[in-house]
Amino acid sequence: MRISDFRIHSIAIADPPLRSSYGLHAPYALRTIVELESDDGMVGISETYGGEAQVQQLETLRSRIRGANPHRLTGFLSPMVEGDSAGTARSQTWLVPGENPLDATTRTFAAVEVACLDLIGKTVGQPVCDLIGGRVRDEVPFSAYPFYKHAGGGGEASDAREDEYGEALSPESLVRQVKQMIARYGFGSIKFKGGVFEPDVEIETIRQLHRTLGPNVPLRIDPNSAWTVETAVKVGRALRQELGRGGYLEDPVAGLAEMGEVRRRLLTQGIDTPLASNVAVTCFGDIPAAVKMDAVQVILCDHHYWGGMRQVQHLARLAKTFGIGLSMHSNTHLGVSLMAMAHIAAATPHLTYACDTHYPWQSAADELVLGGRVPIVNGCVRVPDKPGLGVELDYDQLARGKERYARCRYRKRDDEAEMRKAVDPNWKRVLPRW
Amino acid sequence: MRISDFRIHSIAIADPPLRSSYGLHAPYALRTIVELESDDGMVGISETYGGEAQVQQLETLRSRIRGANPHRLTGFLSPMVEGDSAGTARSQTWLVPGENPLDATTRTFAAVEVACLDLIGKTVGQPVCDLIGGRVRDEVPFSAYPFYKHAGGGGEASDAREDEYGEALSPESLVRQVKQMIARYGFGSIKFKGGVFEPDVEIETIRQLHRTLGPNVPLRIDPNSAWTVETAVKVGRALRQELGRGGYLEDPVAGLAEMGEVRRRLLTQGIDTPLASNVAVTCFGDIPAAVKMDAVQVILCDHHYWGGMRQVQHLARLAKTFGIGLSMHSNTHLGVSLMAMAHIAAATPHLTYACDTHYPWQSAADELVLGGRVPIVNGCVRVPDKPGLGVELDYDQLARGKERYARCRYRKRDDEAEMRKAVDPNWKRVLPRW
Repeated sequence: MRISDFRIHSIAIADPPLRSSYGLHAPYALRTIVELESDDGMVGISETYGGEAQVQQLETLRSRIRGANPHRLTGFLSPMVEGDSAGTARSQTWLVPGENPLDATTRTFAAVEVACLDLIGKTVGQPVCDLIGGRVRDEVPFSAYPFYKHAGGGGEASDAREDEYGEALSPESLVRQVKQMIARYGFGSIKFKGGVFEPDVEIETIRQLHRTLGPNVPLRIDPNSAWTVETAVKVGRALRQELGRGGYLEDPVAGLAEMGEVRRRLLTQGIDTPLASNVAVTCFGDIPAAVKMDAVQVILCDHHYWGGMRQVQHLARLAKTFGIGLSMHSNTHLGVSLMAMAHIAAATPHLTYACDTHYPWQSAADELVLGGRVPIVNGCVRVPDKPGLGVELDYDQLARGKERYARCRYRKRDDEAEMRKAVDPNWKRVLPRW
Repeated sequence: MRISDFRIHSIAIADPPLRSSYGLHAPYALRTIVELESDDGMVGISETYGGEAQVQQLETLRSRIRGANPHRLTGFLSPMVEGDSAGTARSQTWLVPGENPLDATTRTFAAVEVACLDLIGKTVGQPVCDLIGGRVRDEVPFSAYPFYKHAGGGGEASDAREDEYGEALSPESLVRQVKQMIARYGFGSIKFKGGVFEPDVEIETIRQLHRTLGPNVPLRIDPNSAWTVETAVKVGRALRQELGRGGYLEDPVAGLAEMGEVRRRLLTQGIDTPLASNVAVTCFGDIPAAVKMDAVQVILCDHHYWGGMRQVQHLARLAKTFGIGLSMHSNTHLGVSLMAMAHIAAATPHLTYACDTHYPWQSAADELVLGGRVPIVNGCVRVPDKPGLGVELDYDQLARGKERYARCRYRKRDDEAEMRKAVDPNWKRVLPRW
């Protein structure tokens, strides 16, 4: 079996006006869909970060992919993910995920690896999770991912989407948003994107969530590095009970040393709320310093930029070895990425927290999985008993996504620019802000 | 595809009277051959440590293996290899490899995993290395593995094997042995088993090897923990030049703290000869302390007791992350284990040293790979372009191995008892001896 065709599709999908310390989500998010077709007519697919730079990176591999044996391609390309070791850090404090040039290579490899595994799975009739070690779970738990947001469901003009959740710029409306999400998807844990308002407002938001949902729903807050060490310690102390059971404080501050300092100060006060990160630790090269400083107790992996499914499995074994928890980071995505995340999670024993997902923020109108959106039931995605990732492309929907990309003015993600355009012309990302 | 039959074969193979700090190799070494047959008649095989205890461990899995899907079996059984994390150390200082009850579970899993991968590879027509990430090399370098030895080629009475290498109980005869091995197999690096004579004799042996082979052949010495910290530092200093380029000092002392102390003292003297280990670090649980103490700069993995091929790949990524080198440990083995080692090494980018192998010590009379012994050319095993491991069982030879097992009196490995019986009735393993 050889790869006879390699297709790269840039798409745009509607995205609601979600807020974070990076700024504001634009009306459209960009994704890239990869297809690898074999000479016996099978097609393997994957989804990754979007925009022009990602496509250019994928294009550079064309001559190595065409004609390759998909079982061997990942070996040939392995220098792309084996380059980093101790000291080659890649923090993305100042860059939104998918826009960090330092992980462009691992992101690009991952898109190819997932498509290869899907192609292999479809060819041999086995689910991807069972090609990479075998499933340890059939149902993968995900968290609700509430955001402060402005009114609107994403998209523009006649292409605007329904605003299912409405505006949420206060603790009360955030709680309402979470209740809606739980009612619809049955989520059992909550990851709340903070870093938008004064820390006291966000503390109050977590407290209201805790009161509303009870002590058995783990809560997490992620201000995307917006706080000083002092503020982070203050929030950690204020929310010691609310974040205590199965929750965590995610990237409260920028920098590994600063994370380590927050950890040290919290422990000194008897507070062992774990610190999680997908900003201070984004590659293997970040880990030795993180371990040394005890800077991160939970790593949020993302197969897209960690270099694919097998690298995430390596990471999980490493994390377990050092007593570090593992969860999964998410960026705006459709069902192909969701299924890839689910397959990796299914075949990764040391996954200690429900995974993040932005999926509820996307609209069925943009889904390009044949048959429509992947169900999330009781907060879980079920790994289907189908070959490969278990999903196929709806080519009509793909065509619409490509038209949307052609039509929209975005070619990369820039939440700061969007914030200036839509909310405050003088807005700047400041770290730490509080 | 389901597994319809699970067969376990205990075999004995001739083994020459090799010496180490553990004692003496018995005339027969024990191995276990595993077969997994699928309901469409394919057979996957593996080879592991031998003797009664190993068979009993494998037997406990029978009900879980019969009827299982080989793609999923390793996922179901993954708790067998996911049990250890920080703090659950398993040093085998006092136990020969294969006789450590603390790694019985990982050893047993590995035998099943390799046979599953061989079965899958044979079923889908792909080499094992290309099922686990894809080859990064087609030729896997191995080291010569000279031992001090008594006269004899192993086996007993009419079943005795030719003594190809003769007695080697002096530096000069050891050098002759190495030259013979290089002439026959083309090895490009040398791993010398010490811990048998006074350190000065072994220093002289390494010096003669260095003079004979020149500075471009990496040399390693492994006294199996026989030395004090002082002696280890003395040897390290004496051989700083000879072990310097691509060589290492392997398990000079017993214990992680002691290894760390040797490292510290050598560095203080400006000597950065790496310390390698397959005794102080034998599982993931040993690693955090090893990293903290800088006790080990090269880990010698062994898929048999590290829990299989994928665990070795996880280990390699971890080692790379922390700037630790990786080589491969060997125990007396036949061609099935050799091919499994070669496939893992082929698909493991971070393999920084030639692998160990005892293979030259075994006789063609005992090989059970169909077609005879696996070739080692220019010191390398070539990964064949055949499905699975690329080797099949010679069932006549397997039957002979089983007869040999039935006939011989050994049911586990005990080098100390053998030393007392054959060389010195008062011999005891003493650590440190010098």
